Amino acid sequence: MAVNLPPLPELHPVPGVRLGTTRAQIRKKDRRDLVVIECSPGTQAAAVFTRNRFCAAPVTVAREHLGQTAPRALLINTGFANAGTGPEGLGDARRSCAVLAAIMDCEPQAVLPFSTGVIGERLPVERLIAGLPDCHGNLSENGWAEAAHGIMTTDTLPKGSSRRVAIGGKTITVTGIAKGAGMICPNMATLLAFVATDAAVTPAALLQCLGAAADESFNRISVDGDTSTNDSCVLLATGKSGLEIHSAEGADYRAFYGAVREVLAELAQAIVRDAEGATKFITIDVVQGASQADCLEVAYTIAHSPLVKTAFFASDPNWGRILAAVGRARIPRLAVDRVSIYLDDMCIARHGARAPEYSEAQGQEIMAKSEICVRVDLGDGTAKVRLWTCDLSHDYVTINAEYRT
Amino acid sequence: MAVNLPPLPELHPVPGVRLGTTRAQIRKKDRRDLVVIECSPGTQAAAVFTRNRFCAAPVTVAREHLGQTAPRALLINTGFANAGTGPEGLGDARRSCAVLAAIMDCEPQAVLPFSTGVIGERLPVERLIAGLPDCHGNLSENGWAEAAHGIMTTDTLPKGSSRRVAIGGKTITVTGIAKGAGMICPNMATLLAFVATDAAVTPAALLQCLGAAADESFNRISVDGDTSTNDSCVLLATGKSGLEIHSAEGADYRAFYGAVREVLAELAQAIVRDAEGATKFITIDVVQGASQADCLEVAYTIAHSPLVKTAFFASDPNWGRILAAVGRARIPRLAVDRVSIYLDDMCIARHGARAPEYSEAQGQEIMAKSEICVRVDLGDGTAKVRLWTCDLSHDYVTINAEYRT
Repeated sequence: MAVNLPPLPELHPVPGVRLGTTRAQIRKKDRRDLVVIECSPGTQAAAVFTRNRFCAAPVTVAREHLGQTAPRALLINTGFANAGTGPEGLGDARRSCAVLAAIMDCEPQAVLPFSTGVIGERLPVERLIAGLPDCHGNLSENGWAEAAHGIMTTDTLPKGSSRRVAIGGKTITVTGIAKGAGMICPNMATLLAFVATDAAVTPAALLQCLGAAADESFNRISVDGDTSTNDSCVLLATGKSGLEIHSAEGADYRAFYGAVREVLAELAQAIVRDAEGATKFITIDVVQGASQADCLEVAYTIAHSPLVKTAFFASDPNWGRILAAVGRARIPRLAVDRVSIYLDDMCIARHGARAPEYSEAQGQEIMAKSEICVRVDLGDGTAKVRLWTCDLSHDYVTINAEYRT
Repeated sequence: MAVNLPPLPELHPVPGVRLGTTRAQIRKKDRRDLVVIECSPGTQAAAVFTRNRFCAAPVTVAREHLGQTAPRALLINTGFANAGTGPEGLGDARRSCAVLAAIMDCEPQAVLPFSTGVIGERLPVERLIAGLPDCHGNLSENGWAEAAHGIMTTDTLPKGSSRRVAIGGKTITVTGIAKGAGMICPNMATLLAFVATDAAVTPAALLQCLGAAADESFNRISVDGDTSTNDSCVLLATGKSGLEIHSAEGADYRAFYGAVREVLAELAQAIVRDAEGATKFITIDVVQGASQADCLEVAYTIAHSPLVKTAFFASDPNWGRILAAVGRARIPRLAVDRVSIYLDDMCIARHGARAPEYSEAQGQEIMAKSEICVRVDLGDGTAKVRLWTCDLSHDYVTINAEYRT
């Protein structure tokens, strides 16, 4: 059950982008599992990928292709991650791209492959290829919602976000879709996210925009601390709106960046809201740290603590577990007597001990909510970080114990 | 349900050590919750404590007292951890020591306090103090088994280990008890462990022995990656056997060290076997690493991965999750094409991809066992590490969601 995740909002078409989705029976019968996102000639693309060293074959191939030519299509399958599959896996990814390229009459390097699903098993590439003509046949500018469904695995709801903004006298669109659910602790990007705009953006500015926006969105969420082998986030810029952005500076860039950041943050938060088994949406603010790295380490140590996460699941204001997580965070120094911890606006610990005004009843009241903010004040500097996570429930165990059955 | 944890073995008395246990109603009614371990004058003590910066008041006081005089007693309560309790908590710990010291007619600094239980709430020191006369009144050389029960919290079984060995013409005894269950990822020591010997050991050799043995036992286990605020491990040496060990060298020391290491390893493994909700006992060997630090980081990344742990719970040979954990471990370099992974003796991945000889049926067979060894060969050096962990089950979530109710 997703936590306060609304139905898909209206996803505005992005001129120059068409999407096709089909049921290719890749791992399960009668499930949308294959998506093609086509973009017009001349589209610029920026992408960020997982830092897991065992990156999947499609990640290797997408990186390679991206360095060689402008993309014409993204090819996405669910069911199998094509990770831990060795040279055969690379071959499967390349072959899939080549077949779509032949259908589209473009270079194979203009197709970027993406996969998500079970790690370590070969991709049933014949079934994938057999699904490509149908997928290509139903390409449409209005295919965003179908595609949002088509990239889901254990997600319970599709995830999308869209903005239309006026910049420099033109109206531009930024629309994106994403999937998440488990193995979520992105580092550079989340499981799969595809975002497109009709602004014309130079490659350097586009990459700068995507990197910065990912750092304020996908790189600030965690479900279970497990970084996937397949994390990929792509930002396409077709240029069809006529708005031109030549560098990562100036008012136009800032307005464009703002729209992209909003779309990415909405998608990232949607992933946490629909995380495997999630019943609570938790915001963690770590403030007054000596450095941003310190704040991040403290925030992730809290976000990854199974004891903190089960306490949230139980609506138990067992704040000692938060204190213990802060105390074991791997940061160079910690002034324990300057640390304060808040649940929403209520101070629960001050100077490293229980706050005198704290009452268990108030703590209980806050913990019973479905959205809770934990704020840790390190009292040691000016750096700060915000990230989003969820609780650890019985359903997380059930989903992941039964994932392959 | 503990995983293959036998009933308490015979715990040989250690001349010079007497133990008393009582029900002081500290947090629950009619439960053994207060233990005194008395040692004879002249006993040497070594101790290792948690590295959590929010260490509990008793840890601070025990460290302080240990630096001032030889110990005469350890005072242990369960129910409340006396952590995150500020100056009042320190006062409570000191006052408890002072009252026991008065009963025993020794200096307050000769009493070392230890607590385990809920973090962040005041110790009900009046009830603790009221229990001391009874606890002191039933001191006995044969009190080890009762004390092993008396220090339990969410442990389902008491944990003890004992060795009698002949060294240098004398027979010496090493006997210890421990408690664990949750918030287990010790760094220098585990939740609580008390070990005594009747060898006479100089302070430096005793500390060296404890530190090294802890590094091969308590510092190599993890249940949930959460390092407690209260971890403490004490080794007492009464000298009553007549065996004298003057330095951390020579055959006598090595034989003594071997006995201590065996007792600590048995206690540490017992903690994992009886971990909260554990249904599987997992040994993780990481070999051929560039450094021991690399091996440890890889081993802990696997041990802490919720996805790996739920796959063990489900007996699902989803080895891709192990691969993904290795790939995200924070080590300086990883030669992915040299990594091999084994389940027991079966190679599941070689050169970073699924091993050709691997069959899902065999994988299933191994995963169905209650004790499983995961071996990761990094192919990058000569360092190695072994640690023990367990799976993540529904019961872990249940136990920790309901801990305070």
